[in-house]
Order: sequence, then structure tokens, then C-alpha cells
Amino acid sequence: MQETSDVIIIGGGAAGLAAALYAARFKLQTKIIAKEFGGTGNIAHLVDNWIGDPGVTGWDLMQKFIKHVESYQVPMITGEVTAVTKTETGFAVRLSDETIHEGRTVLFTNGMIHKKLGVPGEEQYQGKGVHYCYTCDGPLYKNKVLAIMGGSDSAALGSLFLAEYASKLYTIYRRDHMTAEPISVEKVSQHPKIELVPKSTIAEIIGDGKKVSQLKLDTGKTIDLDGLFIEIGHLPLNELAVKLGVKVDSHGFIDVTKKQETNMPGVYAAGDITNATELKQFITSASEGSIAAQSIYNYLQGTAQ
Amino acid sequence: MQETSDVIIIGGGAAGLAAALYAARFKLQTKIIAKEFGGTGNIAHLVDNWIGDPGVTGWDLMQKFIKHVESYQVPMITGEVTAVTKTETGFAVRLSDETIHEGRTVLFTNGMIHKKLGVPGEEQYQGKGVHYCYTCDGPLYKNKVLAIMGGSDSAALGSLFLAEYASKLYTIYRRDHMTAEPISVEKVSQHPKIELVPKSTIAEIIGDGKKVSQLKLDTGKTIDLDGLFIEIGHLPLNELAVKLGVKVDSHGFIDVTKKQETNMPGVYAAGDITNATELKQFITSASEGSIAAQSIYNYLQGTAQ
Repeated sequence: MQETSDVIIIGGGAAGLAAALYAARFKLQTKIIAKEFGGTGNIAHLVDNWIGDPGVTGWDLMQKFIKHVESYQVPMITGEVTAVTKTETGFAVRLSDETIHEGRTVLFTNGMIHKKLGVPGEEQYQGKGVHYCYTCDGPLYKNKVLAIMGGSDSAALGSLFLAEYASKLYTIYRRDHMTAEPISVEKVSQHPKIELVPKSTIAEIIGDGKKVSQLKLDTGKTIDLDGLFIEIGHLPLNELAVKLGVKVDSHGFIDVTKKQETNMPGVYAAGDITNATELKQFITSASEGSIAAQSIYNYLQGTAQ
Repeated sequence: MQETSDVIIIGGGAAGLAAALYAARFKLQTKIIAKEFGGTGNIAHLVDNWIGDPGVTGWDLMQKFIKHVESYQVPMITGEVTAVTKTETGFAVRLSDETIHEGRTVLFTNGMIHKKLGVPGEEQYQGKGVHYCYTCDGPLYKNKVLAIMGGSDSAALGSLFLAEYASKLYTIYRRDHMTAEPISVEKVSQHPKIELVPKSTIAEIIGDGKKVSQLKLDTGKTIDLDGLFIEIGHLPLNELAVKLGVKVDSHGFIDVTKKQETNMPGVYAAGDITNATELKQFITSASEGSIAAQSIYNYLQGTAQ
């Protein structure tokens, strides 16, 4: 059994690392636990939306974050959390190696995963023509041929966004119509660069081993292209939090106040796992992590211990 | 008369610059107008809370932000905005040189100023021992003698924060008691490093020309020290927004939703001027600016023009 920390941060992406930096500056006894520090940020290719650092890679940016946290001597524990439970004085965080870490507060920054199609070629070409974040990676495809898979409102907005960059965009969706807001559907339908491909799904993603070159649809149709954006929803990694009793919204994102509080005293959440903002980016995650650290500091100052 | 922009951003600090970056990535016709680009960020000394960039100066960080925005060819206009008014199709932004810039939307990122004591030495020693942000600059004073002026809750929390770093802290306030939460007052009162100085204000800040060395109080008492934190409130620069009809809260901060919307359609706000968060930092301002840009993009996609 180890000494009880002021806060245990679960997750090592932008939200968790920024929270660790701020918690350390607030002089909180802090531990951060992650399967892999840097998280999904590590696999982002060209990042041009972290202001002040044009064109940095996701890997390099996350290394800078990690080094900054290390400079504050925050214990960084690589491990898989299997359970978080309430104790008399706070929370117990259990890892797969059976070690237990106790904290007076806990901060969930586990993030989310983008829903996958689960078709041949998808995994092989991830980051090599297959993308899951149009605001992040769309601008890499100036004057290229693109496709987006999805019929939702965010697929419609993604279509309009990508069409600003692409020479031609195919918008592919399962039903006979998009389920987006009418005004967006109208704009997508009328856009000179966009070709609608209804009643279709992707059967296979084909390339030359290095880059995507073609889609095969379930209708038999093929599409030659340079890049594919898959926009069919997200899965917040909320299992540990839900088991503890944390409230999530109808999409599974943790319900947070603007102080990053959850419904449970002493339990906070930040980053992609929350419903704080629809814009899921390094900058928004890092901001939420920083705010969570301040809220935890204020919470601990307001308790009798 | 110039072409109507999609968005006119007023203010050139972290919030405005991040908004300009994201707006440009959303391919919005964007203009950013500021008296001085970089804003109050320019005068921040050692910044160690911008994650990934330990120990950067405020000036250097703001230069990086500015260069990044310039790389997207966003028109950056140096000028003083004197009025923002509603037009039939959007908003007119008038500058002191009588030029008018029209935008379909407008984003206020004018920031706030920290309330000043208005005593001799305060201006001379700003950044040279006189500070207005304890979370930003407190960690510079490890094992030094400090004072904080203020009796509010944030002065109490600031006292506890600074006492983690200082060898000794004087907490000076006008009344005979602090008006903070009882638990915080109790912790401040019992803290071994903190000496309370009630019924006092600062009459003069004295130094050797380069750095603060002493405070003279109105009671005649003097205090030798290395640094002073003034925590007597903030003034959001809300005049232009209020004249336009934008709603502010009881402290004068612009009331925003989590999408950075104000009460007026087409009018957004981000950064220190808003009540989005109590943590006023580069990271939170930049995040709010990014979110505002996305909201403006979605708003314009949802309008018929």
C-alpha cells in the first residue's frame, strides 16, 4: 500500500498531462497512470492546430508535454487501470498488476476512440489515407480527391469542411438520405465539388501498401481517391467511470460542469471523455485538464483534511 | 467600405489568435483587429504553464502565436475599435481612424485588466516584484518573502498557494477580517508561514530601481520582501460589447455558453473577457478561441447566405 495522493490522474494524453502540470504547480501530491503516455496524440501526423508550433508531429508534441510534466517530478506510472472504487477517505485505483493506488480525488482523462468500419484495409492504412478527424487532418489534402463516410450532422459539416480543401469529395452514407440538419444537407447536396453516394457502405479499402488509392463499395462501385475520412461516431472510454457511479450523457460522454466536476464529489473528468465541448482537440483537452487541476486544488482546500 | 468578412475578431491575445488560427483552418474569411498583438501576454515573464514549452517568456510565446496565424494569411489589423454596431447583414466595427470593417459575425476577445492599487511604485515595479496572477508567477518565488494584498476568497486561495512556495507570506487586507470562505480563512490563519496584516492597505511600494524590496503600509508599518501579489479583482474590458447589447454577469464578464455564444446571435466571446472559466490562463483562452471559431463556422453553415 502506498501513500495516499491528493489526486490520481487516469490517462496520459493532452488532458491528463496538462492536469498533471497544473496539479504539480498547485503543489498537489499527484500521480498519473496511463497505458501509454501521449495516448492517441502519439499517432497524429502533421499537427498544425497547436498554436505556436506549426507542423509539429503528434509524437513530438506529446514528447514535449511528457518532458514538461517530468520536469515537475510527477510520478508517471505505466499500467492498465482495472477498477476505481470508493474508499472511506477517497478512491482506490487498482492496476492489472494488482497494485493499488489511493487518492483523495480522481481525475478521468481516458479519452475516446473513433468508431471503426471494421473492413479490410482500414487498420493498415490508418494515418496513410484513412483518418477519423476532419478538422485535424482535412487541411493536409489540398486539391486531392477525398471521401467521407457517414450520414450524420457531423458528417455533413465534415463534408462542407473537406470540400473547402479537396478538388472532389464523395459523401457516402448507408441510408437514402443524410440524417443531418436540413440546411447542412441542402448545402452538401448543392456543393459543386461534392458527389453524394447514398445507400452504400465501404466493403474494402485498397492501396499500394503505402497509401490508400481506392474504395470498393458494397454496391460493387469503386472510387479512386487520395484520402478517406470515417465519421460514424465516437466511443468514450467510460467503463471505469460508469462502474464507479459517474453519470454520463446519452452518447456516453461524462457529464461535467464548467469546473470539470462530475456528479460525484472528488471525481473529475477532462478531455475527449467528457461532454465539455464538441471540439475534441489537443488545445481543448489541455485546457480542461488545467481547469480540473484548479478545481481539485480548490476542493481539497475546502475539505477538513 | 471593405468586403464583408465571415468573422471579425476583436483582440489579439491568446484567445483572439487561437480563434484566428481555427477560423482560417475552417476557411472563414477572417480579420483580427487589436491595439497590440500579443496583448497582456507580451508582458508575462517566465511562463511555465504553457504545456510543452517550459520557461518560455510571454513575449516569445505570443510571437510564436502571431507567426502561426500569419502563416494562414489572416489579415491582422493594428487599431483601436471605438464601436461595434448591428447592421442588416451582420456587424460594423469602427476604428479610431474612422475605417469600418463589416463582418457577418463578431468575436470579442478584449480580455480584462487586473485592478490596480494606484500607489507609488506599483507601475514602476510591475513584473519586477509586483504581480497580478499568483498561479502564473507564484512559482518564481521559491523560499522568498512575499506579500499578497486582498481579503477575498481568491486572495485567501492565493495566500495558500503562495505559502507553498514562499519562506514567509504576509496577507494584507483592509477590513478586520477576510471575506473568504470560512474554511479558507481558517487555513490561512493557522498556516505557519502566513502572517495576517488586517486593517491595512499599501501606501507605497519601494525598491532599488530594479526590484521591489519594501512595502510601506498606511499604518506606518513597513515590510521587507521580495515580491507582492495584488489580488483585489478584475475589470473585464466589456464596454464595446455592452454597448452592442451583449449580456454580462454581475462581475462584468460576458455570459457565454459552452459554445462561446453570447445572448446575441452572431456574437461570440472568448478568453478573459468571459465567464467561461475562473482559470484565466493562456491555455484556457486559446481553447475558448478555438471553440468560438468552430461555433462561428457551424453558425454560418446554418444560415442561408
